[in-house]
Amino acid sequence: MRIDLLDSTLRDGAQSQNISFSVEDKLNIAKALSSFGIKFIEAGNPASNPKDAEFFDAVLGLDLGTSKLVPFGSTCRKNTKAENDTGLSALIDAQTEYVSIFGKSSSLHVEKILETTREENLRMICDTIEFLTGKDKKVLFDAEHFFDGYKLDSEYALETITAAAKSGAVAVILCDTNGGAFPDFVRKATEAAREALPDNVTIGVHCHNDCGLAVANSMSAVDGGARHIQGTFIGIGERCGNANLSTLIGNLQLKGGHELVPQESVARLTETAYFTAETCNIKLPAFLPYVGAGAFTHKAGMHADGVIKLRSSFEHIEPEAVGNRRDFALSELSGRHSLIEKISHFGISIDKNSPEIAVIIDKLKRLEKRGYVFEAAHASFELMALRELKMFEPFFEIADYKLIESQTSGVNALANAMIKVKVGDRYEITADEGQGPVNAMDKALRKALEVFYPVLSKMHLVDYKVRVIDSGASTAAITRVLIESSDGKRTWTTTGASEDIISASMTALIDSIEYMLHKNNVYNYMK
Amino acid sequence: MRIDLLDSTLRDGAQSQNISFSVEDKLNIAKALSSFGIKFIEAGNPASNPKDAEFFDAVLGLDLGTSKLVPFGSTCRKNTKAENDTGLSALIDAQTEYVSIFGKSSSLHVEKILETTREENLRMICDTIEFLTGKDKKVLFDAEHFFDGYKLDSEYALETITAAAKSGAVAVILCDTNGGAFPDFVRKATEAAREALPDNVTIGVHCHNDCGLAVANSMSAVDGGARHIQGTFIGIGERCGNANLSTLIGNLQLKGGHELVPQESVARLTETAYFTAETCNIKLPAFLPYVGAGAFTHKAGMHADGVIKLRSSFEHIEPEAVGNRRDFALSELSGRHSLIEKISHFGISIDKNSPEIAVIIDKLKRLEKRGYVFEAAHASFELMALRELKMFEPFFEIADYKLIESQTSGVNALANAMIKVKVGDRYEITADEGQGPVNAMDKALRKALEVFYPVLSKMHLVDYKVRVIDSGASTAAITRVLIESSDGKRTWTTTGASEDIISASMTALIDSIEYMLHKNNVYNYMK
Repeated sequence: MRIDLLDSTLRDGAQSQNISFSVEDKLNIAKALSSFGIKFIEAGNPASNPKDAEFFDAVLGLDLGTSKLVPFGSTCRKNTKAENDTGLSALIDAQTEYVSIFGKSSSLHVEKILETTREENLRMICDTIEFLTGKDKKVLFDAEHFFDGYKLDSEYALETITAAAKSGAVAVILCDTNGGAFPDFVRKATEAAREALPDNVTIGVHCHNDCGLAVANSMSAVDGGARHIQGTFIGIGERCGNANLSTLIGNLQLKGGHELVPQESVARLTETAYFTAETCNIKLPAFLPYVGAGAFTHKAGMHADGVIKLRSSFEHIEPEAVGNRRDFALSELSGRHSLIEKISHFGISIDKNSPEIAVIIDKLKRLEKRGYVFEAAHASFELMALRELKMFEPFFEIADYKLIESQTSGVNALANAMIKVKVGDRYEITADEGQGPVNAMDKALRKALEVFYPVLSKMHLVDYKVRVIDSGASTAAITRVLIESSDGKRTWTTTGASEDIISASMTALIDSIEYMLHKNNVYNYMK
Repeated sequence: MRIDLLDSTLRDGAQSQNISFSVEDKLNIAKALSSFGIKFIEAGNPASNPKDAEFFDAVLGLDLGTSKLVPFGSTCRKNTKAENDTGLSALIDAQTEYVSIFGKSSSLHVEKILETTREENLRMICDTIEFLTGKDKKVLFDAEHFFDGYKLDSEYALETITAAAKSGAVAVILCDTNGGAFPDFVRKATEAAREALPDNVTIGVHCHNDCGLAVANSMSAVDGGARHIQGTFIGIGERCGNANLSTLIGNLQLKGGHELVPQESVARLTETAYFTAETCNIKLPAFLPYVGAGAFTHKAGMHADGVIKLRSSFEHIEPEAVGNRRDFALSELSGRHSLIEKISHFGISIDKNSPEIAVIIDKLKRLEKRGYVFEAAHASFELMALRELKMFEPFFEIADYKLIESQTSGVNALANAMIKVKVGDRYEITADEGQGPVNAMDKALRKALEVFYPVLSKMHLVDYKVRVIDSGASTAAITRVLIESSDGKRTWTTTGASEDIISASMTALIDSIEYMLHKNNVYNYMK
């Protein structure tokens, strides 16, 4: 059956800790969600701050396809007419077909937070919705704290939503605002709401994850009659987050046969989740269902061996169906099968019982003990394996380097790097300055090598990540660096680890350049 | 009702990506789980690798209270007698009261992965369990792929578990090994298992989170008759992880009234989750239900205002009940209420409408734009607010510093730092060397300042974290540093942000020392 999705990344998602969107970020997310085919894209309130006002101005120029942008506001204030409410005027000014309005469905909140009467709360709901429908808006009514309210006083909770429906709301969304409800209760309360409301009013659900049940509760609501689900694409949101829409699309559409988004979008689930996380400037958690980098990563040797025999043996779906991929973690638990599978990805076939495999496993274990992790750095893994297999000739050597950073009397610090590289029997020595020591080293190294390898001018660094491991040793702890590089067509990741952040960064930088030159040499793909 | 928990952090948890336990880590986790009152602590197989063998030797010397350590193995191999299986001998040698054995419950796996007959699989299950019970072991039988098997061929799936029960297993654990099951189906299949098994055999459940439903599925199984739940304390595990026990303790014990752990442990839920994450060397996700740093953090101004009026208005439980705490995120969305609440924590009361509040909000916004995030750095926030309120006199100034790192002909890089500090009208200049530039600066700075403030010798750094933000600019991106410091009694966190990792680290280091001196001065708590 058809189920509408409303993505609230730009509104409830913006209420996550550590999330701060620029106007550009918001426009990019709106575009990605509409291209994915999410029906409703909820944004903030144009009246709430200048950034949101700027967003609503800019979004008018975007083609959002069949998606509907939905500004979000609250019912008018107590003892005030809707027509005099500036927040509501701003919603109207946003020039959208739909608006989302939240109102109180719990008598506790009416009395203790609004500090008004139950009748006045009903008046506020009705007056607001009638005012907006009078301005030709289609109104989605968010029944805040519906489930808590239903538990406390079911009659009043139902009264608020029937009032909203009578006033012309096209959909009533039952909210588990505090995230405390359990699935069975959600189903029962949704059934009661379905019974209380006319058939032409859609029932929606808005769940939070404070009990780890937002996805299950959303599915229970569908069982109870909901046909509209609110959440955020990667689950971010106030406190423990909102229902994760990418998980729900997997569960309800791919596995459940319902229609939430255009069928062809499902294969872009992973890519869209990554894009959203990147734009939020967070790392997509590796363990996220369907879309996480580790969702189909097998670590136990027995699981890896099983999957190689029969894909469905340890996977509930084909990773490709959601645009993700199978992987095998490399570690002391992983078997030879995983390693051989991995090595075959770069075009080398090797026998399970060959002595080289044992050598690579041994090297891997020794490097992992020193803080390396190759799971996220495939390019460094490939170079390591090729070096161990004696199939790699280095393109250059670092003869020596010196780095100086100084600050005098409060003037901004300056970092300078000198470096001497050797290619064949020729040397090149040069220097550069940068914002911090790693940037200075990076610039100087590339400057020296471009003399020999002009192709390096096409390469740039995409991401630079630093993680301190074994952090008990504080500033002398082991630092692991991950560098993502690109030649404009493909990207690759390299790693280094050391007590010294400069050394760790140098290792990863050197690998990133060696990898580029190696691929260029092997495939000549840039000519 | 009473529900037993089995924590598999040391076994299934060890199968998460990026997790690698030392023997010491495993012992520490076992101690923490037993002190928390988890009934069963599953560890690996002493026969699988030398590290696990070492762990089982060492764990014999530990007092695990009422907790039972459970080694984990599989049924004997096909066409082999249990008494000749070396894996099973190793389980017996582990000298535990209980052992955990997994066997196949899905006919697909019997045929395609084991490549044997259904009868031989039943023989393997029975022979193994009878052999172990003959050696006085209590056997937990993990029915691998039970739910998938039940869907495919319910009769055979039930046959495997009734065989296990007849052979003497004290508990049969229904496993959703691939994490693909939905709650309603889990309940129905568990009910069928309950009906098929004798009353004296406990039914357990083992769920994975590949559909984001591991917690909901575990609860459904309890509804269907399960009285034993397997998972990991913070949810780590193969692929998308296992059922999160800390969430289930919140849902089923605190909110559901069941008895999973001693009642007094519930208030230690958060602390135990942090300890487990630290020992796993991962950051506990902030959005984790109940125990995450953000689980009770309110960001939207309206939520913060609501909670200040009435705690239950936006919280499903009291955070103190699980040892967590309420917090208010500081950001452009947060209201004055949050800020005042936060400032009141360090003993300053300030009026909502005072001009100072506007000044602090303004400063906060400007620093956040430059990459600072104070949500995780309370000490830096306190110093910033005190500086803006003109209630703070700096204890020292950095006059200048110089940092030199060099590497010649492949010899290990050396970092040296020179620093000159000013205290009152006196100067101190000194130098030190370290493992990398930040370590060298840290040592030199403290060496110079201890001349004036000997109390600093009691301070040490606990953690040093680096995050690259705005990473599009790669090695010239903004780097945010978090430093956690301790005086042996309390810890505090400071932050710095800059394009230059050295500058960012210096800011955080300076704050950490200023904070220590400030607290020492104000409270004289160290005298």
